[in-house]
Amino acid sequence: MTEADYEVTKHVARANRAFYRAFEKLDLEAMQRVWLDDPSVRCIHPGSDLLIGAERIMDSWRAIFAGTEAISFEVTDLSVELFGEHAWVTNGEEITAHHEGEVHSAKTVATNLYRLHEGDWRMVLHHASPVARHLGE
Amino acid sequence: MTEADYEVTKHVARANRAFYRAFEKLDLEAMQRVWLDDPSVRCIHPGSDLLIGAERIMDSWRAIFAGTEAISFEVTDLSVELFGEHAWVTNGEEITAHHEGEVHSAKTVATNLYRLHEGDWRMVLHHASPVARHLGE
Repeated sequence: MTEADYEVTKHVARANRAFYRAFEKLDLEAMQRVWLDDPSVRCIHPGSDLLIGAERIMDSWRAIFAGTEAISFEVTDLSVELFGEHAWVTNGEEITAHHEGEVHSAKTVATNLYRLHEGDWRMVLHHASPVARHLGE
Repeated sequence: MTEADYEVTKHVARANRAFYRAFEKLDLEAMQRVWLDDPSVRCIHPGSDLLIGAERIMDSWRAIFAGTEAISFEVTDLSVELFGEHAWVTNGEEITAHHEGEVHSAKTVATNLYRLHEGDWRMVLHHASPVARHLGE
């Protein structure tokens, strides 16, 4: 990896951390800054169908945040691939959530796609899915 | 969309159809031709953890094909986005599978990423996840 690519990778990893931090803080404005404000952006929450467009996706975060008391993420196996003005991240998500006095934990895996927009890496796709079983291992 | 982009989109959509056709035919050689033969490629089967590298991913297809009698896909809501030598596809998958004399149906949603390699669009990421509940709708 060139030094320039290393620098870009650091910026993308920072954008990815900002996504999980916004989620942990249940901060809708921070989540809005993470995403590209565009009708083409896509989001697939664990166990859910595809949502298209920033407006609909922000509605989904509003509903998720309203239904969550506290949540924390341990991001595992982070990998960043660069291709020009796009970057593709995969990582595991070890989730601990509090809901109605109970603690729930879950493992999910995510594909996050970012696009360089006016100097910032903005999320254009988030696809997270539950990890329940192991295939091909 | 320019005429050139329209042509490229057709090629990507054809690669995406070849993926589902290889799956329906349970044809491991065809599936191998769909993927880029590279240690960086990634695959997340529904409910499963991330697999990295063509070899490990082909092992997973071998296991899935061995455990499947017959399967068919209806691909819905296909969307193709181009960015240079990469293309990003999302689509729904209405699945009908036969196993031990029983018919099972499921709905999943997939993110498929393709890279132009020696004139062919090759899969570099497949992330499929079950659709069970609806958020933000």
